[in-house]
Amino acid sequence: MLSTSSNPLQPQYALGIDIGGTNTKFGIVNTRGDIFYRGAISTRKHEDVEAFIDDLYEATLPAIASIGGPSEILGIGVGAPNGNYYKGTVEYAPNLGWKGVVPLAEMMSKKFGLPTSLTNDANAAAVGEMMYGAARGMRNFIMITLGTGVGSGIVVNGQLVYGSDGFAGELGHNIIVPGGRLHWGTGARGSLETYASATGIKLTALELLEQRPDAQSLMREFSADALDSSKVYDCAMQGDALAKQVFEKTGEILGLALANFVMFSSPEAIILFGGPTKAGDLLLNPVRQSMEANLIPIFKGKVKLLFSLLSESDAAILGASALVWETKP
Amino acid sequence: MLSTSSNPLQPQYALGIDIGGTNTKFGIVNTRGDIFYRGAISTRKHEDVEAFIDDLYEATLPAIASIGGPSEILGIGVGAPNGNYYKGTVEYAPNLGWKGVVPLAEMMSKKFGLPTSLTNDANAAAVGEMMYGAARGMRNFIMITLGTGVGSGIVVNGQLVYGSDGFAGELGHNIIVPGGRLHWGTGARGSLETYASATGIKLTALELLEQRPDAQSLMREFSADALDSSKVYDCAMQGDALAKQVFEKTGEILGLALANFVMFSSPEAIILFGGPTKAGDLLLNPVRQSMEANLIPIFKGKVKLLFSLLSESDAAILGASALVWETKP
Repeated sequence: MLSTSSNPLQPQYALGIDIGGTNTKFGIVNTRGDIFYRGAISTRKHEDVEAFIDDLYEATLPAIASIGGPSEILGIGVGAPNGNYYKGTVEYAPNLGWKGVVPLAEMMSKKFGLPTSLTNDANAAAVGEMMYGAARGMRNFIMITLGTGVGSGIVVNGQLVYGSDGFAGELGHNIIVPGGRLHWGTGARGSLETYASATGIKLTALELLEQRPDAQSLMREFSADALDSSKVYDCAMQGDALAKQVFEKTGEILGLALANFVMFSSPEAIILFGGPTKAGDLLLNPVRQSMEANLIPIFKGKVKLLFSLLSESDAAILGASALVWETKP
Repeated sequence: MLSTSSNPLQPQYALGIDIGGTNTKFGIVNTRGDIFYRGAISTRKHEDVEAFIDDLYEATLPAIASIGGPSEILGIGVGAPNGNYYKGTVEYAPNLGWKGVVPLAEMMSKKFGLPTSLTNDANAAAVGEMMYGAARGMRNFIMITLGTGVGSGIVVNGQLVYGSDGFAGELGHNIIVPGGRLHWGTGARGSLETYASATGIKLTALELLEQRPDAQSLMREFSADALDSSKVYDCAMQGDALAKQVFEKTGEILGLALANFVMFSSPEAIILFGGPTKAGDLLLNPVRQSMEANLIPIFKGKVKLLFSLLSESDAAILGASALVWETKP
């Protein structure tokens, strides 16, 4: 549940930190989602977590000073791949150099002298959307992040769903096409991520180009390496039939998955975030059509399909900062 | 969240009512799940809801008197098909004679002079399991009821998931085999219910018998009408290879569905209930194998697969009664 601190004596700022495989971004954020200071350090150059935290601390000092010092900050929120909210740990994150289970929240809390909450990036995005974005005022919604992979954050009764172990909400790994496309990382076949991520969209494009050697397509102007979901979109906007089909197939599979999710938690809305959403109606229309077709009557025409209202560059910092205002369930 | 009323001055009993298409059963239950009085009336003979409630009221009078009168009862809990917890309504229930949206909780509350909570039968089963059964002490689990259909009740953070409209938890309608078996009621293809319900098990048996005309099977001794999931089980226990395959195929599809559910809410356990669970390991082993095979590593070997601890005849009354002790989220 969210409670915006209305007591003027209470600190009004949060330090939001987004840890990515390459860079770590941070910002000072108020309860309305205004970002007052932005900064970044390299994640990749630190194989040692303590050196990373030392560097991050140094980098944030001017940010913290700019709003009047640490007494003005209520806490730190961290979004990190494989972040566990219950334990405050980052566990076996494949894209980070750190090995095993890292008690990051505790380490940060000691170094900064501020309470620190941590979750994975998609959960942070969901909290950000609930606090500042398209899900303001909603108590039941699902956030789907479409990027290199497919992430998800699920809110039920106004609370993020963490499950028994803190790892709930791995909807990108739901099997939607049994026996389907091989996942490059998990080895599973037919998971949502293999079709609906930016990576999946590219694979669908390459598949269609190969299956239809005689079909003309602007997508053929790009090498397999250079083609990506944004170029598929550009081609579709120029009227390319095969490129449009890529989004139709993507939408069909994503829509089926969303129907299954709706029949699980009956959300008020599903919020889509990330690069592929730039395709707009080209993606949204087939998603909506497929979702509605796969719902039982009781759910039809009820669930809003929305795009995130947060800018892609700010969303991760905003989401991480919003953790500070979320009380533990 | 459950709170067993420990104040001795507070009423210690609940009236649990299970409305089925044919009969309506009721019982007086204490906080430990002991049933003190059982009774039943016909549902089917009442097309008029008010006449049904009048009849039910008359039938429960001796039950209520037996524990000292209505002042000893904290409230009424009702499990009903298409029951909506938020609104206390039964909506367009295909198996009940009542038309449209019936404000049953309000009508019962007026007639009995007792607060009345209402939910669908699978949700009631989940609350019963949490209060008295295999899920005691669990804050995150999923209940799957296997019968003519497949129902589900989902508990997250100790609360039933009702979603934005009160209808969450229709996992039987999740599409698990896209383009698969036609559902007799919804017209959807490949939903879990078409494979994992008792009806689905029978259909799988008939399909296998037709696909393998040369294969010997004890199942051939029954007419298509007479064959049911319990007879398939009897044949399998006598070593019938084709009957065993029926459970293997059922388990494969149910296990895949359960893996998807686990990656949604990361439950501590999944609890299976209903006729087909009598098959025991014959069903449970292929379910477990398929579930584990379809999970990403972070969830493997973590989730308990359990059978319900409530007797099939009492579970519905116990579940309904347990609603009385559950506070609204």
